[in-house]
Amino acid sequence: MQQRIYLDHAATTPMRAAAIEAMTTELTRVGNPSSLHTSGRDARRVLEESREVIAACLGAQPAEVIFTSGATEADNLILLGAVRARRRKTSDDDLVVVTTTVEHHAVLETAESVASDGVRLELLPVNRDGLIDLDQLRMILNRHADRIAVLSVMWANNETGVVQPIEEIAGLARRAGVLVHSDAVQAVGQLPIDFAGSGLDALSLSAHKFGGPVGIGALLARKEIRLAPVQHGGGQERDLRSGTLDVAGVAGAAAAIKISTEALAAESRRLRDLREKLITGALAIDGTVLNGVGDPAASLPGIANVGFAGCQADDLLMLLDQAGIDCSTGSACTAGVSQPSHVLEAMGRTRQQAGSALRFSLGHTTTASDIDRLLAALPATVERARRVLR
Amino acid sequence: MQQRIYLDHAATTPMRAAAIEAMTTELTRVGNPSSLHTSGRDARRVLEESREVIAACLGAQPAEVIFTSGATEADNLILLGAVRARRRKTSDDDLVVVTTTVEHHAVLETAESVASDGVRLELLPVNRDGLIDLDQLRMILNRHADRIAVLSVMWANNETGVVQPIEEIAGLARRAGVLVHSDAVQAVGQLPIDFAGSGLDALSLSAHKFGGPVGIGALLARKEIRLAPVQHGGGQERDLRSGTLDVAGVAGAAAAIKISTEALAAESRRLRDLREKLITGALAIDGTVLNGVGDPAASLPGIANVGFAGCQADDLLMLLDQAGIDCSTGSACTAGVSQPSHVLEAMGRTRQQAGSALRFSLGHTTTASDIDRLLAALPATVERARRVLR
Repeated sequence: MQQRIYLDHAATTPMRAAAIEAMTTELTRVGNPSSLHTSGRDARRVLEESREVIAACLGAQPAEVIFTSGATEADNLILLGAVRARRRKTSDDDLVVVTTTVEHHAVLETAESVASDGVRLELLPVNRDGLIDLDQLRMILNRHADRIAVLSVMWANNETGVVQPIEEIAGLARRAGVLVHSDAVQAVGQLPIDFAGSGLDALSLSAHKFGGPVGIGALLARKEIRLAPVQHGGGQERDLRSGTLDVAGVAGAAAAIKISTEALAAESRRLRDLREKLITGALAIDGTVLNGVGDPAASLPGIANVGFAGCQADDLLMLLDQAGIDCSTGSACTAGVSQPSHVLEAMGRTRQQAGSALRFSLGHTTTASDIDRLLAALPATVERARRVLR
Repeated sequence: MQQRIYLDHAATTPMRAAAIEAMTTELTRVGNPSSLHTSGRDARRVLEESREVIAACLGAQPAEVIFTSGATEADNLILLGAVRARRRKTSDDDLVVVTTTVEHHAVLETAESVASDGVRLELLPVNRDGLIDLDQLRMILNRHADRIAVLSVMWANNETGVVQPIEEIAGLARRAGVLVHSDAVQAVGQLPIDFAGSGLDALSLSAHKFGGPVGIGALLARKEIRLAPVQHGGGQERDLRSGTLDVAGVAGAAAAIKISTEALAAESRRLRDLREKLITGALAIDGTVLNGVGDPAASLPGIANVGFAGCQADDLLMLLDQAGIDCSTGSACTAGVSQPSHVLEAMGRTRQQAGSALRFSLGHTTTASDIDRLLAALPATVERARRVLR
């Protein structure tokens, strides 16, 4: 039997061998890094060395790394934490949270939850290419910068791979004195990240998107920003995030980010070429369209979102699955429920167009032959899916 | 060099070999359990089978298991989630949260945080043995059961091992119609747990306390109870806890709870004997006292908290550490900061008495020779520590 082809790296990517090794080494040791005895101090040392590696790979200071259980928690911490810190200080209920219509649910649902608590929520729309309008951001910042608790704009979109001009966005926010955050889950490990140089105040990341384990994420947060804790307890992680620290997971994350960062330039070129090949092949089929940006400079190297007119994406997914190919209709994070993509709808696609799109996401295990096999299977698959609807 | 003796299992216990094996097997696979393709469905299968094992070991239904990043998050979810669900429904700011003075910081700090939001917090005191007064609980329930958003009483204390009469407490709460929760972090894997029979509405657990990995916990929660989510996002785990599920960690947790449950009766007897031996030996030293309950039926089999008059616990800890013995002055969870124990102070000990106590916690790797070596080292260690203060 032929091996399955995995083209869903944006949902989760196989762990790097070095990450598995680092992690399994730690699993056999004992020691709570908050304990004062030798075993505890040894665990603390591994934790802090891992923190240094992660910080160094991302242009951050070790003290700026707040470990969490994943990016969802990091997004919750920055949004809820920033709003609560402002409320505590000003008792002003006239706060505003600004984000975009194409965010991951971890940001959108958290923003909705603060909105239901009385905070005003402003969602920046995107154009057909999925990019936000910087002039509109300027207007919002001019209108009421002093009321904005946090501006959150994702670095690169998880469904389309579209990369926002984060440094410009961060620059505008900082000049306006507004706390600015980016959910960089898809960018970390795929694009060079320099937290210090980015101008951002905070950034979310998730280890399992770059070859580390599931269950480990971080919020990078400048020390000056004021946040209230979201998860209360023993006071680990700058009193902002309580809970026993997962030393094994953090060691795995550090090994993964190290290898991803070292391989970044070459791997990025390799994936861009594969993506190009995939897009060219897919668009050769009648009635297909790229959802996203053709310009490789404004897109992640590993994500291609393609609309197949006259198909239901769910049918395509099932047929490709039967052919041994794993891909996705969008975000995996909506608990297994298939819904039209809010990202594609925000980009002006009709519900039907949004419902005909597949996301192919490439990663470190993807080979040219994977793409060949996909492209060989695709025309007949699309034809079959179209016959279902006819 | 002799191997170190690890007597801090209540902080974290070495992983069971079966748990490491289950986990490392999953680390080499890929698949987000929320993905619809074959790899995703395979991951989902492992996740749900693990959920069934965990539920079965604890007398719960699989649908009652809500996976979290640990017990801290589970405690936050039940306390904050219950308060928010009540607020949403009643818009009544006159809510009450009831817990005890000897809870872990994960419960206490979360309760304090809702108190700072206007909820009234009532803390049940304990007697010198560390047990709450059931009559006092009855009075509180009589006074304003309808206003109580949640009652939370830990099953067994992490510093003293004292076991509360949870079934009686749960019975009183249920008859009063009050949502009742127990932080059972130290009890799970040490005592038989029957969630259905306990009368509890919710229970927190943490895998790394019973030989599973750090970073995995769960809230067992009856389906009827109303909770608001604390961590927002993709809507995993009954829409109550968003974030990609850590299949490897959950598989490790399932393997650990399975082996702990199977071994429970024999292991419990074995540890009780070792604890007895430890206590007898330690109390043979002049000026020592057991903080907790002598009766083994009202105490965890693995925890012994001993006060050493005339010593500073930090000095004892350091001297034992030098002798190759890892133990603790109390909870490891206060981020490495040594403070007098709030638990011992709540039990009527003076600050000085609380500051002279060591917690020895035993677990599946503890042997009789570990206890012999501790008891051999203890008299001279105590003597040296006393000389420092004289």
